[in-house]
Amino acid sequence: MAVYTEVADEELDAFIASYDIGALTSCKGIAEGVENSNYLVQTQAGRYILSLYEKRVARKDLPYFLALMEHLAARDISCPLPVHDREGRTLRELAGRPAALITFLDGVSVRRASIEQSASVGRALGHFHVAGESFPRSRANSLSLSDWAPLFAAIGDRADAIIPGLAGEIRKELAYLDKSWPSGLPQGVIHADLFPDNVFFLGQDVSGVIDFYFACNDMLAYDIAICLNAWCFESDASFNVTKARAFLQAYEGVRPLSVDELAALPTLARGAALRFLLTRSYDWRNTDGEALVKRKDPNEYLRKLRFHRKVKSYRDYGLGEH
Amino acid sequence: MAVYTEVADEELDAFIASYDIGALTSCKGIAEGVENSNYLVQTQAGRYILSLYEKRVARKDLPYFLALMEHLAARDISCPLPVHDREGRTLRELAGRPAALITFLDGVSVRRASIEQSASVGRALGHFHVAGESFPRSRANSLSLSDWAPLFAAIGDRADAIIPGLAGEIRKELAYLDKSWPSGLPQGVIHADLFPDNVFFLGQDVSGVIDFYFACNDMLAYDIAICLNAWCFESDASFNVTKARAFLQAYEGVRPLSVDELAALPTLARGAALRFLLTRSYDWRNTDGEALVKRKDPNEYLRKLRFHRKVKSYRDYGLGEH
Repeated sequence: MAVYTEVADEELDAFIASYDIGALTSCKGIAEGVENSNYLVQTQAGRYILSLYEKRVARKDLPYFLALMEHLAARDISCPLPVHDREGRTLRELAGRPAALITFLDGVSVRRASIEQSASVGRALGHFHVAGESFPRSRANSLSLSDWAPLFAAIGDRADAIIPGLAGEIRKELAYLDKSWPSGLPQGVIHADLFPDNVFFLGQDVSGVIDFYFACNDMLAYDIAICLNAWCFESDASFNVTKARAFLQAYEGVRPLSVDELAALPTLARGAALRFLLTRSYDWRNTDGEALVKRKDPNEYLRKLRFHRKVKSYRDYGLGEH
Repeated sequence: MAVYTEVADEELDAFIASYDIGALTSCKGIAEGVENSNYLVQTQAGRYILSLYEKRVARKDLPYFLALMEHLAARDISCPLPVHDREGRTLRELAGRPAALITFLDGVSVRRASIEQSASVGRALGHFHVAGESFPRSRANSLSLSDWAPLFAAIGDRADAIIPGLAGEIRKELAYLDKSWPSGLPQGVIHADLFPDNVFFLGQDVSGVIDFYFACNDMLAYDIAICLNAWCFESDASFNVTKARAFLQAYEGVRPLSVDELAALPTLARGAALRFLLTRSYDWRNTDGEALVKRKDPNEYLRKLRFHRKVKSYRDYGLGEH
């Protein structure tokens, strides 16, 4: 949750007036998004989210993210649509921050998805990947294999202070992934952060996907691996193979996986678990106590990593023989 | 800002279903209210605020607050109206906390009110005091004169660590207020926390008043004294006598002040400044660094207190001879 930047009254009024959306009737800072300050803005024309991008989101990447949302929304992916101001701009500045006004999506994020909801997320990710194929821009993944060793180095000795033995375990995992990381798999635009926080449901169906600020070009199957971590474990760290099966089968209903992608899934899942273990460990030690963000427990991802290490093949994720 | 308590998905669904307001379409934790966790809830029937009351709000006081909102709303005061569930209850329980669903009010709170807005707040407070006359319940002010010395004692030596010399200055002020605090002035329901955060505007007019969780029975003029502190100083701590005049004249347009109330105003304003100086000083030293609340600077109220100490009569607040 986060509202880092406050906007002065007059500045907000002038900002809203620069769009063709009527007068402001309400503006509430909302506890959503870790990287931005977000406001739920209501005007005579409707509801919007006003996002102010804080330092963790690089300004140079914002045109990619905003153009991606426009590209996806035009292809019937339910995601926020950046609103154009009277001069046609989507990327603006407010309170000294890059800012954008995007449309509001109905729906509720769930903490624990049902089987049906897991399937709906799989379908949504499949459609997202297909719709992204024609997206002309490209952005490298800044949190992929080659970035993990430097991130680990930045955590340094503090890893063992978080969880005793963590440093050694990460070191071994990095060595394994370095020699086993797949290549040649189908690439495309991935969401890269499709956690339950970033998916809205109405009933059992995905009603919207938000928060594209980690989106990048990478192996599509890596996005699936992130979702296996984010959606298919219970709060006691047990793997729910029924949810995984529902998720994967629904995804394959939209975009079937190749043999190579299936074979790479356990390694990609280990990589995805390590990526979140590393960023959470880094944030655990570096979060200012005054910050308005809840720290997330690195231990959760260590347990997930250990699970994937024991996985023998994609069949352990609930898929039948392909 | 605050969202302290998270609500499980199923619990929220069941809670919403216990009201006759249709299905949930959106729920966002909002950065509003320091004492509660607040969610902006949208259902097929409309928009609501779901408040979960944290430990600073005494459970035994909630029926007073909720009944007050109903009483005021029935008298055309624009304030949130507690929604009755299918069994007729307004006070409920959710996620282990007392909880209430109240109607959503349009409007935007301002950081720096205009002259017209200051007048509109004065009128709104006047109407609030008049509408409260017929409210049958009573609740003592738990942050009045007799509570300040114990609060000061709880801050203890740490006062001087916040601002050097603060302890001595508070001690002297308490001694003055103890012998000078007025009695016999008109009593009634006061809001007791009518800060800019708690007032919404549409344009220049007050569109709503929220956050009744300090409301109590006390001298009506003390509520005015709180507003002089909360609305009539600029950010450099200078007193804006034009705003004070606009506020007081508009208030008197609804409920004229007696000679005794006018005479007591400077003392009441000192008391109000001391009350917020004390609670801010207490919070300054006691706020957990992990808490999702921005600490408010005690120094602001020390400067306001010093201003009121130099005030010779109510005329210094911009009112002409009565």
